[in-house]
Amino acid sequence: MDFTLSPQLLSLQARTREFIAEEVIPLEREQLPNEHGPSEALRAELVRRARSAGLLTPHAPTEMGGLGLSHMAKAVVFEEAGYSALGPTALNIHAPDEGNIHLMGEVASSAQKERWLRPQVEGRTRSCFAMTEPDGAGSDPGMLETTAVRDGDSYLINGTKWLTTGADGAHYVIIMARMEDGTATMFLSDMDRPGVRYLRTMHAMDRCFSGGHGVLSFDDLRVPATDVLGEIGKGFRYAQVRLAPARLTHCMRWLGQARRAHDEAVAYARTRQAFGKPLAEHEGVGFSLADNDMDLMTARLHIWHTAWLLDQGQKGNFESSRSKVVCSEAQWRVVDRCVQILGGRGVTGESVVMRIFCDMRAFRIYDGPSEVHRWSMARKIVQRSGAIQ
Amino acid sequence: MDFTLSPQLLSLQARTREFIAEEVIPLEREQLPNEHGPSEALRAELVRRARSAGLLTPHAPTEMGGLGLSHMAKAVVFEEAGYSALGPTALNIHAPDEGNIHLMGEVASSAQKERWLRPQVEGRTRSCFAMTEPDGAGSDPGMLETTAVRDGDSYLINGTKWLTTGADGAHYVIIMARMEDGTATMFLSDMDRPGVRYLRTMHAMDRCFSGGHGVLSFDDLRVPATDVLGEIGKGFRYAQVRLAPARLTHCMRWLGQARRAHDEAVAYARTRQAFGKPLAEHEGVGFSLADNDMDLMTARLHIWHTAWLLDQGQKGNFESSRSKVVCSEAQWRVVDRCVQILGGRGVTGESVVMRIFCDMRAFRIYDGPSEVHRWSMARKIVQRSGAIQ
Amino acid sequence: MDFTLSPQLLSLQARTREFIAEEVIPLEREQLPNEHGPSEALRAELVRRARSAGLLTPHAPTEMGGLGLSHMAKAVVFEEAGYSALGPTALNIHAPDEGNIHLMGEVASSAQKERWLRPQVEGRTRSCFAMTEPDGAGSDPGMLETTAVRDGDSYLINGTKWLTTGADGAHYVIIMARMEDGTATMFLSDMDRPGVRYLRTMHAMDRCFSGGHGVLSFDDLRVPATDVLGEIGKGFRYAQVRLAPARLTHCMRWLGQARRAHDEAVAYARTRQAFGKPLAEHEGVGFSLADNDMDLMTARLHIWHTAWLLDQGQKGNFESSRSKVVCSEAQWRVVDRCVQILGGRGVTGESVVMRIFCDMRAFRIYDGPSEVHRWSMARKIVQRSGAIQ
Amino acid sequence: MDFTLSPQLLSLQARTREFIAEEVIPLEREQLPNEHGPSEALRAELVRRARSAGLLTPHAPTEMGGLGLSHMAKAVVFEEAGYSALGPTALNIHAPDEGNIHLMGEVASSAQKERWLRPQVEGRTRSCFAMTEPDGAGSDPGMLETTAVRDGDSYLINGTKWLTTGADGAHYVIIMARMEDGTATMFLSDMDRPGVRYLRTMHAMDRCFSGGHGVLSFDDLRVPATDVLGEIGKGFRYAQVRLAPARLTHCMRWLGQARRAHDEAVAYARTRQAFGKPLAEHEGVGFSLADNDMDLMTARLHIWHTAWLLDQGQKGNFESSRSKVVCSEAQWRVVDRCVQILGGRGVTGESVVMRIFCDMRAFRIYDGPSEVHRWSMARKIVQRSGAIQ
Repeated sequence: MDFTLSPQLLSLQARTREFIAEEVIPLEREQLPNEHGPSEALRAELVRRARSAGLLTPHAPTEMGGLGLSHMAKAVVFEEAGYSALGPTALNIHAPDEGNIHLMGEVASSAQKERWLRPQVEGRTRSCFAMTEPDGAGSDPGMLETTAVRDGDSYLINGTKWLTTGADGAHYVIIMARMEDGTATMFLSDMDRPGVRYLRTMHAMDRCFSGGHGVLSFDDLRVPATDVLGEIGKGFRYAQVRLAPARLTHCMRWLGQARRAHDEAVAYARTRQAFGKPLAEHEGVGFSLADNDMDLMTARLHIWHTAWLLDQGQKGNFESSRSKVVCSEAQWRVVDRCVQILGGRGVTGESVVMRIFCDMRAFRIYDGPSEVHRWSMARKIVQRSGAIQ
Repeated sequence: MDFTLSPQLLSLQARTREFIAEEVIPLEREQLPNEHGPSEALRAELVRRARSAGLLTPHAPTEMGGLGLSHMAKAVVFEEAGYSALGPTALNIHAPDEGNIHLMGEVASSAQKERWLRPQVEGRTRSCFAMTEPDGAGSDPGMLETTAVRDGDSYLINGTKWLTTGADGAHYVIIMARMEDGTATMFLSDMDRPGVRYLRTMHAMDRCFSGGHGVLSFDDLRVPATDVLGEIGKGFRYAQVRLAPARLTHCMRWLGQARRAHDEAVAYARTRQAFGKPLAEHEGVGFSLADNDMDLMTARLHIWHTAWLLDQGQKGNFESSRSKVVCSEAQWRVVDRCVQILGGRGVTGESVVMRIFCDMRAFRIYDGPSEVHRWSMARKIVQRSGAIQ
Repeated sequence: MDFTLSPQLLSLQARTREFIAEEVIPLEREQLPNEHGPSEALRAELVRRARSAGLLTPHAPTEMGGLGLSHMAKAVVFEEAGYSALGPTALNIHAPDEGNIHLMGEVASSAQKERWLRPQVEGRTRSCFAMTEPDGAGSDPGMLETTAVRDGDSYLINGTKWLTTGADGAHYVIIMARMEDGTATMFLSDMDRPGVRYLRTMHAMDRCFSGGHGVLSFDDLRVPATDVLGEIGKGFRYAQVRLAPARLTHCMRWLGQARRAHDEAVAYARTRQAFGKPLAEHEGVGFSLADNDMDLMTARLHIWHTAWLLDQGQKGNFESSRSKVVCSEAQWRVVDRCVQILGGRGVTGESVVMRIFCDMRAFRIYDGPSEVHRWSMARKIVQRSGAIQ
Repeated sequence: MDFTLSPQLLSLQARTREFIAEEVIPLEREQLPNEHGPSEALRAELVRRARSAGLLTPHAPTEMGGLGLSHMAKAVVFEEAGYSALGPTALNIHAPDEGNIHLMGEVASSAQKERWLRPQVEGRTRSCFAMTEPDGAGSDPGMLETTAVRDGDSYLINGTKWLTTGADGAHYVIIMARMEDGTATMFLSDMDRPGVRYLRTMHAMDRCFSGGHGVLSFDDLRVPATDVLGEIGKGFRYAQVRLAPARLTHCMRWLGQARRAHDEAVAYARTRQAFGKPLAEHEGVGFSLADNDMDLMTARLHIWHTAWLLDQGQKGNFESSRSKVVCSEAQWRVVDRCVQILGGRGVTGESVVMRIFCDMRAFRIYDGPSEVHRWSMARKIVQRSGAIQ
């Protein structure tokens, strides 16, 4: 048991922290209040800075130009990047690209990697992941209604997807579709292909994802068999390959945002006077700061533990579910307390915390709402118990 | 002890409910996502409809054209109005006008009433209440920094106010200022007078208040002594006159919004399928619905009890503090649960609940954050205990 | 809407409060730490005092010698009685007798009333209610395993019951048994009849119920058909008759205990010094006292509202479930906070609060655990919603 | 970063787990319901078994006959021992002996160690720690009222202590007393010395500590200067030496108890039927099991992290406070949920969980209540923040 971080990792952490403070936070005010996410221009500038700093797409395989970070190293670096809402965009580690890069690295063919992954790792393109549907698949993948039908050497895909993060402006899309035999398959497609229709961008509470959340329809979209991602019928399995680590990287990035909110609240509480003394000298406020510290460390410890498990080659499905629930709820409590401490500032653009609050609420929902994870955990707890006895 | 509502009140409740359903909710989509609050055009149309329905400014004194509702009657009617985010604007019972109308009715001279109150009751004008300051008075009124200095027959007012709800577009303002002897006084002023500068509208989480939340500065604003509201030096006392009932009307209106969110969640849970059955048949969701019901009824009972106390002529400071904390926290839990039940819909514009969530967060802060009320209650609990023993 | 209590009720409240303070609390130390409940000698003395004070069995019908209190009056009187752990025993309003008296009043024949109810109302006998079973009926009445089989003019009853409160020392028992057709019936039996075996008293956290909680077995217990309570096959229906008000009287009595704990905590916090000032001047403690006040009033308002509904002749199943969950959880939070405020005193016999804490925990479980009530409420919420639309 | 446990530690963990299962749990029913703690006879048998198993006093220095466990190793072994309420007594690692052994190892002279520590490590004697006072020192050590006055070559000690765990039957006591200059000093004394009066054993919720919690008075107790523990005037400093690790070992042992309660609840939920299916297949119960798992792992991770810090030679005051609050509250939630799942069994002696519930409540209070730790953490958070900026 050893909580020591290696010198290399400490150095990477320090460099990322400095990069965020000096190169990213000053750009935060560039994003206008009513944009769905960072504009493409802002994104390009952020990526340019990260590239200069040698911090771009650090999780990608080295052969694709990344730093090949372990899960544990990601835990440290992504938390630092998350300290600014723009940090993950800068480092090219934001959802859904981060998870897509991971999935492509694991499953895509060499040709697919050269065509879609390499430019993405280089920060020149973006992607999206079309899985969730308005009346169907979301928390329950069994309800998938988008279909893929073989037609000669290709597949015809039909269906509607929504909450497709980053769709507006994405260069390619990974599509989850149901086969005639009830299994699911993942398909790759450029976004400018006929048959892909971008219907609209949803109005959402968060605005930290480039391109926001889109609604797409596929109308007889023709995908050549060579653009199947991995094997036919393994869509649900690959979704798991993508999801367990993707869940965890959400935890990492949002931990950075929660820490930022906490730092803002501490700074405010130290200086703001109320009833004759600084806010921080009021026990009620102090208790909230202590609770924040507990929640932040709880989140961090779960992330580290699960990341370590993944680095050991374990699937970590149970633990990534657990971390997802623990982190999304603990980090949310932190941010909610910070809003309360900041008072009027916390619910207005006077503090960065209002935005963190709005950006973070959906985290308790996407990649599996807390309720779905709790239920999945419960079944495993009981099964495990049965096996032992 | 009798929880029966009078036939007249039941009828008024039914009329309000019908009005909201048929005349107000259909207009909800008229407000654009990025507006600070209902536009003046939308507000005018809403007021016109309420006037036609005989429901405009129902809390105002009858001699001013209102229905002279008791606090108890307000509890019933305002909850119904609050069912739509636009309902309070329609009925002219939203903050800050509702509280200002109450205060003017209690304290203003006849001339002041004719000049400022009557047109406001008629829905032709709006007002604002300039008390909170960036670095000073908010939760702690003792930190008031805006000053009023006697100068001949008038007063010169200097200072900066913010979080002044409804300032943009308001016709008159009630200003809280500190006198040279440390007491506070309230002053009335038209907003178009020289010396009143509207600096900007703050970017805020909520967008249900016409005019949003503004920043104002007073630069040698000259107010004639005849425009002092009530007596010199009684500003803090009048603030209490305004606050205790104003707090409670917030509870009433937000109860309507919380009930709306709950109804949306119930409707969704009844029909949306997940894992082979409707959401509502999942215990986890069902428990949330039950918790919502408990929280809604808890809020309602506290409101009713405090309203009844006020109708008995009691000040109800303790009870209105208690109701404010109970309601703001219970109603918030309701809305947060609804977001969770609605999933992706709950955090996007696909459901009205996202907006309720954003609109409501500040309620735990304004008119005294929960922490200030808890502390105020604690001191009274201990004093009372000491007196008895 | 009127929260006024009648002068008669206020007077009864004052008399009960005085009785508890002067006649009951001084006897609290008479109960030894390791007794399952008040001894019969202590109980007899308490009942004697209540009889002298004219407060014995106040909820019983007047023709049986009670005061025929309405539910609303019970709400007020039982809260006062509950202020001491011994108060309900003194007034003869404790579980299970209180609920049995109510049930007998509603369902028993005249002969049964004369034989069993009258001496009980006079405080000369006690009863128990044998429903819960070790592996079967508890929260889920459908699992009832005790059987009654017709045999000539009588029934033969066989089965095991546990958690039968007050069984040790009870004079008669109401037995719930399953008929051959799957329905359930209630039977009356003296406890000293052959076929009733008292196996043991369970070791329990609470020790406020005379006789504690017993395990009984019925071995070919022969009950004459004349001792059937009400009609054959209506056992489940009568259980509801008993349960809805019985749940509510638990809420009332425990509200008294919670108020007592709060008063102890306030008194301690006013005088105990820590870190240079009284505990009560620490915000953390003050916030807890404010939360207590909110929870106590929330519980009281729900009780009042449901009691009023029952007095209107409504069944109030939904509302009594709601009150049961709200009260059992709110009152528990109060007592838990009081333990925390009292510190070492709170977890030792130095304060009465330790005992209240231990006595109250089971309230979240008996008469339906919170989970069962939440689920029952959820189904009704959804059904009601469906009916409206 | 590495969560791997060494093979030696895994082996020790397995041996301890087996020992508890086979040698300790079968003895649990030997302790009678109304004893303050394990009897001396039971304790002697438990210690004998641990000695045979080579598991006695494993944390003691090797030169005293212990295994010299690191904090990290203690985390693993103490959790296993805590799985039975009797396990810590068996291994001689229960409070207050565990903390006293640690303190003696750090501060006592060689002669003192030979006289008092060695027999204690061998499990032949017990000790107590007399610090808390009825009206004075507890959470706030500044209120210490017991005095020590120099008199020739010795000191005369006067004062009253309570909540002195293990006092009844202890062989020696460490006394915290105030000097004339306001500093504090620790003194060692045999318990059978004149001037030590054992007044009574307090009636307490817990009954897991041998000897229960006692009240002691010192009446002109004469302690030779050679029996001062460490240096004069360093009492508060030594209290910290004792407290930071002692807090953490509480967390470890109670984690074992919480895990035990959870296992009991899982086993029950797997088999107990309700409403047509096992309890565990009800989402409401499943969610509770998932929450338990999260809380248990959260507690474990904080313990591991703080133990590692202490092993690095850090004082870890902040982190041990944090762990104490996190663990005492998370573990309490676990046990409370288990009571709820077990229903009637959970609040009676039918399940071991009732006792765990009663035993554990005080953990949120002793060694600093949550409130004191939160406040201490808050001040450090703010100071640290100030230092950085």
